[in-house]
Amino acid sequence: MRPSGRAPDQMRAVTLEPGASKYAEGSCLARFGDTHVLCAASIEDRVPPFLRNSGKGWVTAEYGMLPRSTHTRTDREAAKGKQSGRTQEIQRLIGRSLRAIVDLEKLGEITIKVDCDVLQADGGTRTAAITGAYVALHQACQHLLKLGMVKALPFTDSVGAISCGIYKGQPVLDLDYAEDSDCDADANFVLTGTGGIVEVQGTAEGAPFSQAQLGELLGLANKGIGELAILQRKALGL
Amino acid sequence: MRPSGRAPDQMRAVTLEPGASKYAEGSCLARFGDTHVLCAASIEDRVPPFLRNSGKGWVTAEYGMLPRSTHTRTDREAAKGKQSGRTQEIQRLIGRSLRAIVDLEKLGEITIKVDCDVLQADGGTRTAAITGAYVALHQACQHLLKLGMVKALPFTDSVGAISCGIYKGQPVLDLDYAEDSDCDADANFVLTGTGGIVEVQGTAEGAPFSQAQLGELLGLANKGIGELAILQRKALGL
Amino acid sequence: MRPSGRAPDQMRAVTLEPGASKYAEGSCLARFGDTHVLCAASIEDRVPPFLRNSGKGWVTAEYGMLPRSTHTRTDREAAKGKQSGRTQEIQRLIGRSLRAIVDLEKLGEITIKVDCDVLQADGGTRTAAITGAYVALHQACQHLLKLGMVKALPFTDSVGAISCGIYKGQPVLDLDYAEDSDCDADANFVLTGTGGIVEVQGTAEGAPFSQAQLGELLGLANKGIGELAILQRKALGL
Amino acid sequence: MRPSGRAPDQMRAVTLEPGASKYAEGSCLARFGDTHVLCAASIEDRVPPFLRNSGKGWVTAEYGMLPRSTHTRTDREAAKGKQSGRTQEIQRLIGRSLRAIVDLEKLGEITIKVDCDVLQADGGTRTAAITGAYVALHQACQHLLKLGMVKALPFTDSVGAISCGIYKGQPVLDLDYAEDSDCDADANFVLTGTGGIVEVQGTAEGAPFSQAQLGELLGLANKGIGELAILQRKALGL
Amino acid sequence: MRPSGRAPDQMRAVTLEPGASKYAEGSCLARFGDTHVLCAASIEDRVPPFLRNSGKGWVTAEYGMLPRSTHTRTDREAAKGKQSGRTQEIQRLIGRSLRAIVDLEKLGEITIKVDCDVLQADGGTRTAAITGAYVALHQACQHLLKLGMVKALPFTDSVGAISCGIYKGQPVLDLDYAEDSDCDADANFVLTGTGGIVEVQGTAEGAPFSQAQLGELLGLANKGIGELAILQRKALGL
Amino acid sequence: MRPSGRAPDQMRAVTLEPGASKYAEGSCLARFGDTHVLCAASIEDRVPPFLRNSGKGWVTAEYGMLPRSTHTRTDREAAKGKQSGRTQEIQRLIGRSLRAIVDLEKLGEITIKVDCDVLQADGGTRTAAITGAYVALHQACQHLLKLGMVKALPFTDSVGAISCGIYKGQPVLDLDYAEDSDCDADANFVLTGTGGIVEVQGTAEGAPFSQAQLGELLGLANKGIGELAILQRKALGL
Repeated sequence: MRPSGRAPDQMRAVTLEPGASKYAEGSCLARFGDTHVLCAASIEDRVPPFLRNSGKGWVTAEYGMLPRSTHTRTDREAAKGKQSGRTQEIQRLIGRSLRAIVDLEKLGEITIKVDCDVLQADGGTRTAAITGAYVALHQACQHLLKLGMVKALPFTDSVGAISCGIYKGQPVLDLDYAEDSDCDADANFVLTGTGGIVEVQGTAEGAPFSQAQLGELLGLANKGIGELAILQRKALGL
Repeated sequence: MRPSGRAPDQMRAVTLEPGASKYAEGSCLARFGDTHVLCAASIEDRVPPFLRNSGKGWVTAEYGMLPRSTHTRTDREAAKGKQSGRTQEIQRLIGRSLRAIVDLEKLGEITIKVDCDVLQADGGTRTAAITGAYVALHQACQHLLKLGMVKALPFTDSVGAISCGIYKGQPVLDLDYAEDSDCDADANFVLTGTGGIVEVQGTAEGAPFSQAQLGELLGLANKGIGELAILQRKALGL
Repeated sequence: MRPSGRAPDQMRAVTLEPGASKYAEGSCLARFGDTHVLCAASIEDRVPPFLRNSGKGWVTAEYGMLPRSTHTRTDREAAKGKQSGRTQEIQRLIGRSLRAIVDLEKLGEITIKVDCDVLQADGGTRTAAITGAYVALHQACQHLLKLGMVKALPFTDSVGAISCGIYKGQPVLDLDYAEDSDCDADANFVLTGTGGIVEVQGTAEGAPFSQAQLGELLGLANKGIGELAILQRKALGL
Repeated sequence: MRPSGRAPDQMRAVTLEPGASKYAEGSCLARFGDTHVLCAASIEDRVPPFLRNSGKGWVTAEYGMLPRSTHTRTDREAAKGKQSGRTQEIQRLIGRSLRAIVDLEKLGEITIKVDCDVLQADGGTRTAAITGAYVALHQACQHLLKLGMVKALPFTDSVGAISCGIYKGQPVLDLDYAEDSDCDADANFVLTGTGGIVEVQGTAEGAPFSQAQLGELLGLANKGIGELAILQRKALGL
Repeated sequence: MRPSGRAPDQMRAVTLEPGASKYAEGSCLARFGDTHVLCAASIEDRVPPFLRNSGKGWVTAEYGMLPRSTHTRTDREAAKGKQSGRTQEIQRLIGRSLRAIVDLEKLGEITIKVDCDVLQADGGTRTAAITGAYVALHQACQHLLKLGMVKALPFTDSVGAISCGIYKGQPVLDLDYAEDSDCDADANFVLTGTGGIVEVQGTAEGAPFSQAQLGELLGLANKGIGELAILQRKALGL
Repeated sequence: MRPSGRAPDQMRAVTLEPGASKYAEGSCLARFGDTHVLCAASIEDRVPPFLRNSGKGWVTAEYGMLPRSTHTRTDREAAKGKQSGRTQEIQRLIGRSLRAIVDLEKLGEITIKVDCDVLQADGGTRTAAITGAYVALHQACQHLLKLGMVKALPFTDSVGAISCGIYKGQPVLDLDYAEDSDCDADANFVLTGTGGIVEVQGTAEGAPFSQAQLGELLGLANKGIGELAILQRKALGL
């Protein structure tokens, strides 16, 4: 019934490949089926002006898509001279999601910027980006620990994300592009490894959806992000 | 316990003043306490390229804040030469919320653009904007009806929005700025008059929140948006 | 003969409402008939680079129009990514007009920025803006005086502005939009309360006008700005 | 008493060199002392959208300064990515001044764009630009006449411009940079060859000036622009 | 003597992986040692305005670097709002190089745009991009042939590129980053498969180099591009 | 056979007029036939951030064309809001060419910026710019020497540039616009006074050219730049 033949609560094949970028302090190539996002974490030995002399660090993210990551070519944002509203919305979301599980005081006056670049896009790029960005960020913090720049890993939990939606009336987990462009509702969930809600973004694409359906989607997300948390730990050798 | 002394499930004083803008085809000055948003709907006799010859219309929104609507002055976006990520995120949200309750085929090849400009900001500007924009949009459609440009009002429902949050551990309705800048979690709900979910955006500001808390916030939103729906009908003389 | 039925030397109904913006240090909603401009003065405890360590302060202005302040919608400058030449011309004029009556040494190393935002536009927005901006600026300086940040009010005079024009061959005072878009010549005058010229900008819209006509327009401006000066004093309780 | 030793009503040495640009349809290098402006008129066989099918033409101008035309280097506007408010104000003024003496119906659906580029700046660049632009525009119209693209020259008059000011209490004609940067008031006049006012822009730099002084400045402008009109006719061989 | 231990005329390990991008009509991941460039060709069924109704097609390229492709992070061009001079220079070079070996009349009124995105940068990104872009372009043309949109492949030759330089006085082939940042001169050669020169760009980094040295560098380039041509043919199965 | 009737190895009439800009510390109006470029060198008493406290100076260039320098009008880059790729490519080339013959340590922590503005364009503007920029730069350094800001002139050699090309199968020196727009190949050479190569940029416009032809073009460039070096010395009174 799903175009891919998956069961309603079945995710695509997910692989998280740490260290995919040679020069970054932390990195991860996150593949959710045909959606491939390269996440690279860079350490900067300074913080934004509003945090100077606060003892606190900062974690932020940027997001981009290669012009031909998509089914038909998308114009290059650098050539257009600005980032779209969608891009800005997504990179703000990734940044908030990562900060939700980092103790910025423990990080100290350091900025970690995670670039999430979509090499191939088949739906769910923002949730794949968050899931991979956590791995890249974790690697970068291990690097800081090795260098003695932090005393302990500054994490309070792990974080992962997945999209769910109502497709042909049926709640399903991990929408691919074919489903995403034809669903009734679409919700992105960002949850911690222990099930806390970091962010929920649910949108009715056609008709509004019911409050019960929101609950069902949340249930699917719990399952999916639980599986992702296991893959994240494996990727990090934890 | 709330800085304003309100009960947890008590909204601020809300007034919706239709016709506040002399030249717009539809307008509403929405006041939620000290948050004042002027919503003005403009009719254009054409549609964006992707809808040409489709028989369908379009509803969209823009959002802005006067530089001194805020407690301290914010730089003018026109002077900086670009709209912030936050602005773009909000105007996309308003547009989606309005389109969720409009039958674009009934509208026909017409665009209605609703400008939501914040004259004064004390928290909850995006939800006040959506609530007022619906009134402005409705007025504009009545105008179209009078002119014979549509055969019937193209609405499938009404739409309203409110923010809720967890403030000092307590779920509360309709956050003002003092609460918004100091809460644990913050969720914006956009619901139809009949209780369908159009959009949910919940964000943990500090620690993640639980799935039960999400339910409590949704309950408060149901109450608040129910009250707003009554005010909207009154404002429109329905 | 005038579309509004006014006498040639008759201004529109003018009201100046001080304190119209809750958070600004000084503010004034200036209404000239259907032209409504919200002026908000913000105090900043620093000066532009060219005045650092000079002991002198600075007064400047910004100007904007809400997209649907006008009879038909105007594109939002923030969305277009730049301020038009007209906007820049007007905000430079407002700033010069205010500085002409402020003793910047008495102000000390403080910047006051006056935002003039047009909520509704029926002609004469720049002159309404100057007239209201003076009130907002005065309020802000009273605020500085109360806080002990200045020792005395730094004003050398008051300032007001009005547009005059030659409409159907007849010199008239305070053009509204219907006149403005159909006049032969158009002149904006900025005068001090004691009648000194701060700025004159006269433009032939169709055929050039004579040097005698310039004198007649100046006469009308004297009358109009005299009346405005009385309203300004009342608004400020002087 | 004037830094240059000129009499109060004495202009700088002015030369108008027609044809200074090899490829332009009309051109003039206007030199007012050390102020040198190259004006080049280009013909385009189309009009802006608002004039299409109106039978009317359009005349417009652009203005720029070479970065090192000035005493100390000014940043290049193309490198900064935008034209300053001053630049936009000046090019709008030049365009209005030229259109004031052109019968756009006689011109027909043709656009003439006059580029005024300041090669060297010693005060009064905008008035030199207007004076030279008229010559360039006239040449371009002669070109149109020769090609049979217009039936007659579309001019209703000639146009010239000069700045006057109050320098050390004395009204003087044709300010140079030394005077301009140290005067009490500064007024630019754009007059037709027959003495009609096209544009007056008077600004108090320090204290406001009196209405009598405005009259004296206008008197000086009459003298100066009268002399310029003779030079313009000579340059054009009329 | 070379940091990598390579012989002066020895290239890095080069692999050309066609079809690396799932959705593009043609693609190639070009790896020159640690320099990895993903080239993706997109077909558009239209041409730029200057070629409309000419019967000719167009081939063009865009270039970008992922922010953390480099040893230390580079700011994202989309976030800065413009492409650097370097980026524009490179993408113009890639476009010219490809057009040099395509018969645009045979292509017909079709545009092929090749996006070259650097995933990892260790020197020589522009020459790797050209070499890979040829493979991607060829694939896209095969696709057109299959669809019957062209009657024959529109190539007049193949094209490849390599950088050479004078490193510690010694002419060497295929500079890596360590050499590139420390060489005396640097020359990029774009040659056809039959040895014709498409583009030469030689730059002295320190002291000027001699005309004899230019000849030696050209000799190395002949060798390198000869080897690349073999790899290109293999990648394309020719 | 050449449109101008010149011999294949004959340059256009070249004049280098030092001091053409009154206010610049060094300047030169370079005329290559109908190509006229005004080069103006400005001294700034600071260096870019990457050179602070290095003891080294910096030399850089900017390039622009007056809109009507060209045969048909070109849009003004300041009005379009950005410099084209071509402009950036050229100004980077001019800067590199000048730095190749300056000892930046001898210059000390000073920046010299050379603005090259094309007043009239008949082909070869970039090479005329480099040739004239050297003269302007030299003048500026003489100025520094006079002021005691440098102890000796910081030059290691002189630098000049010329374009050559293959026109109707024949290698020719110093292409004008008629040749440039119709040639088979086009190469710009930047050589020192002693014949060292600073930069070579050869591009096939139609079919690739041979390695032998590159040699012939280099031979012509040697001749041309030799002649330019003599003119440069004369202009500088050396």
